[in-house]
Amino acid sequence: MAKKQKSFRPKARKPRGFTDRFGTEILAEQVMFAKIQKVYAMYGFDPLETPAFEFTDALGKFLPDVDRPGQGVFSLQDDDEQWMSLRYDLTAPLARFVAENYDALPKPFRRYQVGRVWRNEKPGPGRFREFTQVDADIVGAPAPFADAEICMMFADAVEAAGVPRGDYVVRVSDRKTVNGMLEVAGLAGDDAADQRLGVLRAMDKLDRLGEAGVRQLLGKGRKDDSGDYTDGVNLSDGQADVVMAFMAATKDSNAATCAALRNIVGKSNTGLEGVTTLERMAETLAALSYDASRVQIDLSIVRGLEYYTGPVFEADFTFEVEDDKGRPIQFGSIGGGGRYDDLVKRFKGVEVPAVGVSIGVSRLIAALQTRTGATLIERGPVVVLALDKDQTPEYQKMAAELRAAGIRAEAYIGGANFGKQIKYADKRRAPVAIIQGEDERAKGEVTIKDLVLGETLSAEITDNKEWREDQPAQFAVPRDKLVEAVKQVLAR
Amino acid sequence: MAKKQKSFRPKARKPRGFTDRFGTEILAEQVMFAKIQKVYAMYGFDPLETPAFEFTDALGKFLPDVDRPGQGVFSLQDDDEQWMSLRYDLTAPLARFVAENYDALPKPFRRYQVGRVWRNEKPGPGRFREFTQVDADIVGAPAPFADAEICMMFADAVEAAGVPRGDYVVRVSDRKTVNGMLEVAGLAGDDAADQRLGVLRAMDKLDRLGEAGVRQLLGKGRKDDSGDYTDGVNLSDGQADVVMAFMAATKDSNAATCAALRNIVGKSNTGLEGVTTLERMAETLAALSYDASRVQIDLSIVRGLEYYTGPVFEADFTFEVEDDKGRPIQFGSIGGGGRYDDLVKRFKGVEVPAVGVSIGVSRLIAALQTRTGATLIERGPVVVLALDKDQTPEYQKMAAELRAAGIRAEAYIGGANFGKQIKYADKRRAPVAIIQGEDERAKGEVTIKDLVLGETLSAEITDNKEWREDQPAQFAVPRDKLVEAVKQVLAR
Repeated sequence: MAKKQKSFRPKARKPRGFTDRFGTEILAEQVMFAKIQKVYAMYGFDPLETPAFEFTDALGKFLPDVDRPGQGVFSLQDDDEQWMSLRYDLTAPLARFVAENYDALPKPFRRYQVGRVWRNEKPGPGRFREFTQVDADIVGAPAPFADAEICMMFADAVEAAGVPRGDYVVRVSDRKTVNGMLEVAGLAGDDAADQRLGVLRAMDKLDRLGEAGVRQLLGKGRKDDSGDYTDGVNLSDGQADVVMAFMAATKDSNAATCAALRNIVGKSNTGLEGVTTLERMAETLAALSYDASRVQIDLSIVRGLEYYTGPVFEADFTFEVEDDKGRPIQFGSIGGGGRYDDLVKRFKGVEVPAVGVSIGVSRLIAALQTRTGATLIERGPVVVLALDKDQTPEYQKMAAELRAAGIRAEAYIGGANFGKQIKYADKRRAPVAIIQGEDERAKGEVTIKDLVLGETLSAEITDNKEWREDQPAQFAVPRDKLVEAVKQVLAR
Repeated sequence: MAKKQKSFRPKARKPRGFTDRFGTEILAEQVMFAKIQKVYAMYGFDPLETPAFEFTDALGKFLPDVDRPGQGVFSLQDDDEQWMSLRYDLTAPLARFVAENYDALPKPFRRYQVGRVWRNEKPGPGRFREFTQVDADIVGAPAPFADAEICMMFADAVEAAGVPRGDYVVRVSDRKTVNGMLEVAGLAGDDAADQRLGVLRAMDKLDRLGEAGVRQLLGKGRKDDSGDYTDGVNLSDGQADVVMAFMAATKDSNAATCAALRNIVGKSNTGLEGVTTLERMAETLAALSYDASRVQIDLSIVRGLEYYTGPVFEADFTFEVEDDKGRPIQFGSIGGGGRYDDLVKRFKGVEVPAVGVSIGVSRLIAALQTRTGATLIERGPVVVLALDKDQTPEYQKMAAELRAAGIRAEAYIGGANFGKQIKYADKRRAPVAIIQGEDERAKGEVTIKDLVLGETLSAEITDNKEWREDQPAQFAVPRDKLVEAVKQVLAR
C-alpha cells in the first residue's frame, strides 16, 4: 500500500465479494421481506435484532487449542483484547440471545429475524461475502409439532413471496431415520465414520447420477464420462440394498413414505424415533391439508444432515427454466432448515429443543424474475425541467403540487440546456416531463411531455419530419391544470 | 481468555456497546422507516445499499503517515493484507459509490439509504457502537435550490414520522456566513485559527449560558457557579460585538434574518456568498410556504460547521418534556446535515457538489413516546391452548383457520398444564386464549377466553369466589363458530 501523502487520492473501489445495490432491486426485496414477515407474524412470531458482532467464543468459531478465530468469519480484537466476529448466520446469535435471556422469555419462543450476515470466504460470481438472511425459529418446543408448523409456514412464506403452488415443494427428511438406516446397514460403529460420510455424499448425487450411478459409488466406485474415477464406499451388495431401498421409500403420499420407511429402519431404535416423528408430522400436515405436493417427505434430502439433530427440510423449485442456450438453469434451493436441539446447550449445559428455517431472498427474486420473465424496471419520478434557473422555486412548487397529489416528482436542479435535461429525464425513466419556458410562462401554461408514449412513438415513427410536426406525445395546459393533466397521462 | 477444552462453555453475553432489540420496538422503527422512505421516494429519491465494509483508505480513516487505521472505526485486514473498515456513516460510502459509478449515474443523483453504521467508540448509556442511519443526499447539484429541497423534505419527513407541525423546527445556517463574520471581526488570518475555534465553541453555548455568558467567553473568560474558570477567546469589545450581532440577527422571519445578516457580513466576499445562498433558500422556502415555524434560518447553529462547506441544518424539537423529577429531558437533535462539496473530490480530483441529511430514528421514537406518553406494547397472537397433546394437529388447525381470517394465531406446542399455558398466553400478551379440553371436544365446542377483559375484571373484582362463579370473560361456542366468536371478542 502506498504511503499516504497530502496528495494521496484513494481509488474508488470495493473490497472483493461485496456489492452495491440500487433502486428497484432493493424495493423488490423490501416488498418480499414484508410479505414473508407478514406470514411469520401471522403465525405468532415476533421480530428480533441482534448486533452484527458477537464474541467469537459465543459463535463457537475459535480454532481448536488456539485463541485465534478460525477461517470463515471476519474477526477483530476489541480494546480489551477480546475477539469479536461478525455473525455468519442468524442462528448462532439466536442461541446466544436465548441463553442470555432464558428465564424472561416465553417458551416456546417464536422469533423471526431479517439481517445481514458475513462470511469470510472466497468470493465468486454471484457468491458474496455479505448477504441478507430471513430466518424464523421456534425455541423450546420439541418435535414433531413445531417442525410441522415450521414446514407449513415455510410453504406459506414461499407462496406469499410469489411462487405459485405447484412451482415449489418443501422436502422433509429426518437425521434419525438416516442414522437408523445406517445402523440397519451395519454402519453404526466408530470405525465406519468414513463410510457413513461416503454414503451421504453418494445419496446427495441421486439427482445427477441416477440409481445406477449411486449404486456404483456405494460399491467399488464409478468412472465418469471423462474417464475420471471416483472411489466407492465399498459396501456389500446387501448394505447397498438398504441404502437404495431407503431412498426408494420416497412416495407420492407422505403416509405411504412413512409406511415404507418403517419397514426399512424400524428395527433400529434411532430409526424408529425418526420414523415416528415423520409419521406425526405427516398426520399434522394431512390434518391441515398440506399434502405432498406442498410438503413432501423425501428421504433423499442430505443437506445439513450433519448439523441438524432431527427433521431437516429444504424448499426447491419444481419448474425448469432454460438459459439463452437451452441449458437448464439451476437455482439451488429456496432455503431450508431443521431441528438443532443442542445449539443453546453450548451455553446452558442443558438441551433446549429448537427448530428453524432460513430463506434466501435474493435467490428467490432471481428465480421469480426468470420464471415470469418479469423485469423490475420501474418508472422514475415526474421531472419538472428547469429551463430558467431563476424560476427554480416555481418549478419546485410544481413538483410539490404533484407530490401533494401522491405523484412522485422532482424539479431539475442545476444549470443544463433543454437537451441535457430531457436526457436526464430519460435516464431517470421519468414517465412525464413538465416544461415551462419563457413562452409558456407568458401564456400561463405548462407543457406536459408523455415520455412513455414518446418512447413508443419514436420506435414506430421513422420519419423525423412527421415526428417533429405532430409531437402527439406533448401538449400544453393552463398552469392550474398541471396536476390534473399529469394524472390523466399517468393513467394512460 | 481461558484455553478452550472439550467442556468449554462460553458465557452468553454481548460485546460492550451492542444491544439486542425485540418485538414492538423493531416494528415501530420499521413503520417509521417506511414513512420517511415514502417521503424521500416522493421527492424522486431512490434507495441505495452499500457494503458494511469499505477499504479504509476510501473512508479516509488512515492515521497520518502510518498504514494503520485510526481510532473510531472497526478495522481488519483482508486476505491480501489490505485494510478494510466497517462504515461509520453512510456519506463516505456514498462518495465512494458516486466516484466509482460517476459516468453512469444521472446527475443530479438523488439517493436515500437506511443502514447500520458502526463506531468504535467508548459506549455509554444510550450510546451504542452500532446504530441505524436514514440518509438522503443530492449529489451533483449546487446550492441553493438543492439545499432548500433537502430542508423542505427534512421537515416533511419529520412530520411524516409523527412529529406535529410546531413541535419541531429545521434550523439553517451557512458555513460561509460564519466565515464572513469571522473575517469582518478580523479573525481570518492563519494566526487566528485557535480564536476561530474558540468563537464557534462560545456560540454553541448560547442556549446554556445566555448572551452575557457567551460575551464573557468571547472576552477574558468566565467563572461558572462552581467557581471553575474557563479561559476566554480574548476578543476586543468591537470583535465580540460582531459575533454577538451575528447571533442576534436571527429573526422570526427568514427574510428579516437575511436582511440583518447582509448588514453584518456583506463586506466580506465569503460572507456575501453565504448570505446570497441563504436569501435564495429563503425565497424558495417562502414560495413553497415553508415559513420560519418549519424551516428557520438560525445563525446560532454551529454543529458540523467544520465538516460542511456551505449550508448546514439540524432539526430540533421545540417542546419540553420533564422526567419523573420535573427536570427537562434533552432529546438532542432529530438529525441534521449540510453541504459537502469536496467529499467526492478525494477520489475524483474534481469538486462534486453534494448536500444531504441524516435522521436518527431511534431518538425520534424515544422522543415521540415521551411526548405522547404512548407505549409501544402491542397485543400478541391469539393462543390456542394444547390441553391434550395428541390433539395438537386439531389445535394447529384452529390456529390456521384464525390466520386464514387475518388473525395472528398460534397453537401452544409442548407439554404443559393448563396454568402454565395460560401464563404463557399472558406473557405473549395474547388477546384471546382458545380452550378445548376433553369435555368441550365431546360437545363439539371450544371455549373462548377474553384475556383483555379478564385483565380488567381481575383488577376490579376482588372477591375470588365471585370471579370463579361468573367468569364473564369466557364463554363456549360450537367448534364451527370459532373464527366468528374470536372476531367478535377482538372487536370489543
